Amino acid sequence: MNPFKVIEVKESIFADNNADADRLRQELKGQGTYLLNLMSSPGSGKTSTLKRTIAALKDELRLGVMEADIDSDVDAAAITEAGARAIQLHTGGMCHLDADMTRQGIREFGTEDLDLVILENVGNLVCPAEFDTGAVKNAVILSVPEGHDKPLKYPLMFEVANVLLVNKIDVLPYFDFDLEKLTEYAHMRNPGLQIFPVSAKTGEGMDAWYDWLRREVKNWKSK
Amino acid sequence: MNPFKVIEVKESIFADNNADADRLRQELKGQGTYLLNLMSSPGSGKTSTLKRTIAALKDELRLGVMEADIDSDVDAAAITEAGARAIQLHTGGMCHLDADMTRQGIREFGTEDLDLVILENVGNLVCPAEFDTGAVKNAVILSVPEGHDKPLKYPLMFEVANVLLVNKIDVLPYFDFDLEKLTEYAHMRNPGLQIFPVSAKTGEGMDAWYDWLRREVKNWKSK
Repeated sequence: MNPFKVIEVKESIFADNNADADRLRQELKGQGTYLLNLMSSPGSGKTSTLKRTIAALKDELRLGVMEADIDSDVDAAAITEAGARAIQLHTGGMCHLDADMTRQGIREFGTEDLDLVILENVGNLVCPAEFDTGAVKNAVILSVPEGHDKPLKYPLMFEVANVLLVNKIDVLPYFDFDLEKLTEYAHMRNPGLQIFPVSAKTGEGMDAWYDWLRREVKNWKSK
Repeated sequence: MNPFKVIEVKESIFADNNADADRLRQELKGQGTYLLNLMSSPGSGKTSTLKRTIAALKDELRLGVMEADIDSDVDAAAITEAGARAIQLHTGGMCHLDADMTRQGIREFGTEDLDLVILENVGNLVCPAEFDTGAVKNAVILSVPEGHDKPLKYPLMFEVANVLLVNKIDVLPYFDFDLEKLTEYAHMRNPGLQIFPVSAKTGEGMDAWYDWLRREVKNWKSK
């Protein structure tokens, strides 16, 4: 038996997802829970980043993770092993989560006692960018092997993101990846985007990311 | 001015995409053109694989490439430089191509004099797998940095693929990637899937892929 619930989320009944996302943010604000929407392509390192983040923050913040997947449970299992409460959301083939699907997960999860909930969205640089999930902020991970041209090709994702983790910097020597060009292209799309080069494998650069999360949660609770 | 056309393709008017895809395949059969649908995540190496494939086959096959992108033209420019005819399809934010969108590209491109047309689908492991484009076969690229668990997490893509290129094997020493496990997971989804480990960067393993393409085009024209 799994140590986490598995929820089959249903497509939203709300025509106006943006208004619904605002309602969900207010609900979460009322209970003092910060929701972060984490997006990336498959294989960029969302789960590895989360595992290391949980290890770093679990003694100071009450953490939960909602794992959205088309139909597997491998990520929720990994997160549970890492020591955080987790729930698995199955999207039934859908390539994204909207605010109401996120709310279904939040309600089943029971988040009243959590400071920070991270929603690991479906691995996809396209569709998830189109839907406000009700999260306070959006984080996107791009990994070095994917190439520095991605903000040119998947512009919306970089426009809606508040923070960009450039992951797998431990393999920079083996790829034609130009961090300066990535920064230039990403800021063309979104001048306010904060960029943290990290390696979820070695831990390099992760402290700046943890500090960002700490500040975000603190501000959300005090405002 | 671009050396290639840019087409804004519109969402299909056909309710039954599968039947429409069969019609498109028959149209292409009638003119002796083989259409391959090439899919992967962003950054797996679709364009690099195509550039090397064009260099290897352009003297024996009449080649064309249709580049589907949400709204950029960077790939069509790269393909044109590599020496193949190319056309850029803009999907206007849509995460996949269906058969009618593919037909719009085929008609604008003018493919009567081509032996092999490769459709580079939108970078996405989810949505493109759900739509038959009218191609004769589906190829998917998974790159080493993405991880060997992807057939577990994105099952449909591996079910609909006829051939899997495992790209970036030149960086195998730097990643926890198990080719045997990938093969096992991929064959769980699709026992008939042909798998070619390759490096589009160094050229390693690419000959088996070229041979597969040569055989496919020859069989299609002779049947």
